[in-house]
Amino acid sequence: MGIIVQKFGGSSVANREKLELVSEHIIREVKNGNQVVVVVSAQGKTTDRLIAEEAEITKTPNRREHDVLVSTGEQITISKLAMLLLDKNYKAISLTGWQIPIITNSEFMNSKIRYIHNETIEEYLNAGNIVIVAGFQGIDENSNITTFGRGGSDTTAVALAASLKAERCDIFTDVDGVFTSDPKIVDSVKKLDSISYDEMLEMSSMGAKVLHNRCVEIGKKYNVPIYVKSTFEKNSIGTIVKNNKNLEDLVINGVTKDDYISRITIVGLENKIGKTYNLFKVLSENFINIDIISQTFGEYITKDIAFTVKMNDLQKTLEVLEENKKNLGIQEILHSENLAKVSIIGVGIANKPGVAANMFEALYENNINMHMISTSEIKISVLVDSDKANLAVNAIHKKFFD
Amino acid sequence: MGIIVQKFGGSSVANREKLELVSEHIIREVKNGNQVVVVVSAQGKTTDRLIAEEAEITKTPNRREHDVLVSTGEQITISKLAMLLLDKNYKAISLTGWQIPIITNSEFMNSKIRYIHNETIEEYLNAGNIVIVAGFQGIDENSNITTFGRGGSDTTAVALAASLKAERCDIFTDVDGVFTSDPKIVDSVKKLDSISYDEMLEMSSMGAKVLHNRCVEIGKKYNVPIYVKSTFEKNSIGTIVKNNKNLEDLVINGVTKDDYISRITIVGLENKIGKTYNLFKVLSENFINIDIISQTFGEYITKDIAFTVKMNDLQKTLEVLEENKKNLGIQEILHSENLAKVSIIGVGIANKPGVAANMFEALYENNINMHMISTSEIKISVLVDSDKANLAVNAIHKKFFD
Repeated sequence: MGIIVQKFGGSSVANREKLELVSEHIIREVKNGNQVVVVVSAQGKTTDRLIAEEAEITKTPNRREHDVLVSTGEQITISKLAMLLLDKNYKAISLTGWQIPIITNSEFMNSKIRYIHNETIEEYLNAGNIVIVAGFQGIDENSNITTFGRGGSDTTAVALAASLKAERCDIFTDVDGVFTSDPKIVDSVKKLDSISYDEMLEMSSMGAKVLHNRCVEIGKKYNVPIYVKSTFEKNSIGTIVKNNKNLEDLVINGVTKDDYISRITIVGLENKIGKTYNLFKVLSENFINIDIISQTFGEYITKDIAFTVKMNDLQKTLEVLEENKKNLGIQEILHSENLAKVSIIGVGIANKPGVAANMFEALYENNINMHMISTSEIKISVLVDSDKANLAVNAIHKKFFD
Repeated sequence: MGIIVQKFGGSSVANREKLELVSEHIIREVKNGNQVVVVVSAQGKTTDRLIAEEAEITKTPNRREHDVLVSTGEQITISKLAMLLLDKNYKAISLTGWQIPIITNSEFMNSKIRYIHNETIEEYLNAGNIVIVAGFQGIDENSNITTFGRGGSDTTAVALAASLKAERCDIFTDVDGVFTSDPKIVDSVKKLDSISYDEMLEMSSMGAKVLHNRCVEIGKKYNVPIYVKSTFEKNSIGTIVKNNKNLEDLVINGVTKDDYISRITIVGLENKIGKTYNLFKVLSENFINIDIISQTFGEYITKDIAFTVKMNDLQKTLEVLEENKKNLGIQEILHSENLAKVSIIGVGIANKPGVAANMFEALYENNINMHMISTSEIKISVLVDSDKANLAVNAIHKKFFD
């Protein structure tokens, strides 16, 4: 008998019928003799509705008050789920972020967990309760309500599993696990039985939307096995995210796509120490996130640097660069829009020669031009035209998985 | 400069436009140099909606979880109102029941305030904030969320005013104060400039729906002047509820009506010590609330007792009496339905002869039969047929106020 943490997202708790399905998953673990902690999100479109109501009040909501508002969504879900389980004669109790409490820093709307007090949860578990926890929320040291940003309920679940030393954390979602690519793009996607934390992190940041990145990082740090499962399939085995990979693992685990990328090219940057640093410092001070960077070093007086930003940061980036053109010593600023980043991910990449060649071959065979290349130990990303991105994903997927 | 507590009910905060009106009332007091604490209810029909959603989950909701659910309504209002004030460049902060905290007993859905911690509110007030408090809610000693039952935001407001030693408590509502009768029944109603706590209590329990009884009791106990005002009239003076009455006060302050009353007559109860006690003990054990009691004492072996209950308690009352008929020693149980209680209230009643006679004369002139009479120091109630009740209220009102 151990502690199991289960997390159910907004679409899994959207109404009475879905809460019934959720209760079956919970009761199954109780009948297996486990102590169960359940983390839930706000029901269906509740958070969107609250944010729409907020927009009627002000376009620039105070961040503290925003968190007071949106945290009510999860509070509604925990009470309903607890009622439903109590109605079925299972002992259950709901706990908000402050009742546990989950202590965070004071960065409203995007706070980070500092510490979780286990005592209250453990007391209720030991008294035979199913403990239903409001995801996505905590309090700071001054008892202000804080929230973790979108997808934060995953973070609550894995952090609780780590803190309570749970056997595992089950993340229930509307798909049956982690797939080798997006089923909406590729027909022949395969479900992965397991994947490592690092690969999952690359998958998430490369555009796969299964798990919130921060929860995977916490899982990795505290070695919490995370099971990604379907709420809607009774015997879903799903995908396990864990540290140790099996020997027979695939070379690559997935092909992902990230749309709405722009590339900016700085032409004729003075080739002196500090010039590159100054460039990225200015961008960072303006809160512009840079993804891939590529630079042509040389023996010349000037060099060219290219980097990518999200499409919705493009205008601001160009403005910032234009303002600082002189003091950064830039000759010209070019940019391309409507690009997509296509990536392959897998721990096998570093050790297996020919992976990159296979990827590039698939693109070449389909006449797809690569605008930029970026590699790491476990991933290779290329920038292609947006209208070729789905073709690229399919071609690469076919090369590695068919 | 002092502390003013303002309370705005659900219809006063229902939407953005109404919150604008509310903010004007708040800002006016701030500009007058006051420290302002604002208590708000859930917006419009929010609580009704949450209860309807709850009914989809279970017909017998767990009381603790019910309070977790419904307390979100006020939390939504406080964040929106704080945002609106911040948007207008006024310093404002929202506080839930647990953030203050307001400590209550553990009777979920109907808890009583035990203690209010002033420190947090005072700190925020002294830092120049308008403090926006969620009405109707607190926590018990184990950090469970509790609620005060319907109308509980009035209680929050007056209790805060008492605890913070506020200058006064303004209860904003959709009418301009306390009236001599229900404007829906009587055309020529008059607004009262002031009324005593005791009279207000009688008015509330006699069917006037302006103030929650518990808040008037707290106001009386801690001598908090309560102003009942209109949210929708800019210069509403309203009615002040306080201890000391002016000398020129009216003999009576109001005529009220309470519908849906049944009278039960116990015929032939044995005239022995303990028999009456046993009768009302049985009813009390079955949670039946008795209102007026009237008894014909005598030298006889048996006596008759009549009393009134609410219509929706009638069936249960008859069942309980039938079950206990033998051991209570009752010969017969009679009942009348469709009665209404019409009352006059005023501190002048005890000292002015002829008040009862005037009331009865008004009824006699209109051919209205009285089924029961009950009097106290400050009120006289009579039971009449429901279909004559409005006529009775009008006739009495005319006799005293025209």
